[in-house]
Amino acid sequence: MTGAALECVHCYSLAHDDLPAMDNDDLRRGRPTAHKAFDEATAILAGDGLLTFAFDILCRAETHSDAEVRLNLVSALARAAGLGGMVGGQMLDLAAEGRFDSSPPKLGEREVKVLQAMKTGALLRFGCLAGAILGKADQSQWKALDRYGSALGEAFQIADDLLDLEGDPATVGKATGKDAAAHKATLVGVLGPVAARRRLESLVAEAQAALSPFGGHADVLKAAARFVATRQA
Amino acid sequence: MTGAALECVHCYSLAHDDLPAMDNDDLRRGRPTAHKAFDEATAILAGDGLLTFAFDILCRAETHSDAEVRLNLVSALARAAGLGGMVGGQMLDLAAEGRFDSSPPKLGEREVKVLQAMKTGALLRFGCLAGAILGKADQSQWKALDRYGSALGEAFQIADDLLDLEGDPATVGKATGKDAAAHKATLVGVLGPVAARRRLESLVAEAQAALSPFGGHADVLKAAARFVATRQA
Repeated sequence: MTGAALECVHCYSLAHDDLPAMDNDDLRRGRPTAHKAFDEATAILAGDGLLTFAFDILCRAETHSDAEVRLNLVSALARAAGLGGMVGGQMLDLAAEGRFDSSPPKLGEREVKVLQAMKTGALLRFGCLAGAILGKADQSQWKALDRYGSALGEAFQIADDLLDLEGDPATVGKATGKDAAAHKATLVGVLGPVAARRRLESLVAEAQAALSPFGGHADVLKAAARFVATRQA
Repeated sequence: MTGAALECVHCYSLAHDDLPAMDNDDLRRGRPTAHKAFDEATAILAGDGLLTFAFDILCRAETHSDAEVRLNLVSALARAAGLGGMVGGQMLDLAAEGRFDSSPPKLGEREVKVLQAMKTGALLRFGCLAGAILGKADQSQWKALDRYGSALGEAFQIADDLLDLEGDPATVGKATGKDAAAHKATLVGVLGPVAARRRLESLVAEAQAALSPFGGHADVLKAAARFVATRQA
């Protein structure tokens, strides 16, 4: 149920980000984006409906028998998806590419990291912390999953930006080379691809190391960190 | 706190409904709509952020000391605002005006009532039921507030549609005469203005009668029902 809620928020963010007024993308996962397959009003409302449904799902008894756990999930998801997370990060992203100002300030490594941690990192981190909430983790387990989630989020974004720079659109399933064209603020842009790939490797190691308290129980999460860094699509 | 959350959802719905791809309104409360004052991306993200923030607010301890009460508020708001409520109603509304089909089926009184109960009634009803949730109302009090909220929601929509038909844009604070032009499905359109005004009066009486178990404690809510029917803006 929690995974379904997270996927609702993820899909809503894609439908809205692809809109003509946002990133104006025609292709997503190799298929027409929502506003291309239907129309803009449908894409906006489908996104609104999915976001709202995510919170509906988390409130249901099937998500967890303890109402306080469900409430903690709602709160964590709202923080991850909202103004201090994904929505705020998307706004900073549009600002950084000069959407609201023809000569926006050039962001350094620190600013890009904050932007990315909000835009994509927060939701990925929620996916990890949701496990801690559902399992009523103790403080040290919580911190370990938080460290893992934060490193995974940054790694995901660098890998995604490298795919945009170097990937094949047919394999990736969406248009590539868009970041440079739109002057997007990315770590790959700030560090260059060679240093970015080094940083990606060290983030995977950091994510995997954070999981050491869980021993073999965390093997799937360790593999997920490796997958994030090596995926071709 | 609950009122603030409701207002966030209300403002988000206005920002999104006013978008060019939706109702394409330039004026709201006598001022430029969000996408006119800023731009479309900002209006979409502001709406997304407000919707998400509403759930964030409801999770906070200041909303109610009992976590189960807060969870019930989240659930009720998600149901009111989501696919079975406001978002679904807006989609049906666009379908009824022929947005997705050049010759849409003409809706009768029953269909228009369902559409309106979803589009605007659900959120108004939430405002009433939130009181029942916060006050841990018993079943008969709950039913009374539900009857009041449902009647109030329908009354509000009829009054709004009458204002669109007969109101002065300068007083109303937004463009009028838009429903007829857009072939919107309204009860005023189905019943005609005279029968609609009669229905409005009987809904106000019904809303006020539902409150009788609360005696004088409900005087403000009774006055609110009267206000909804007589407002000029």
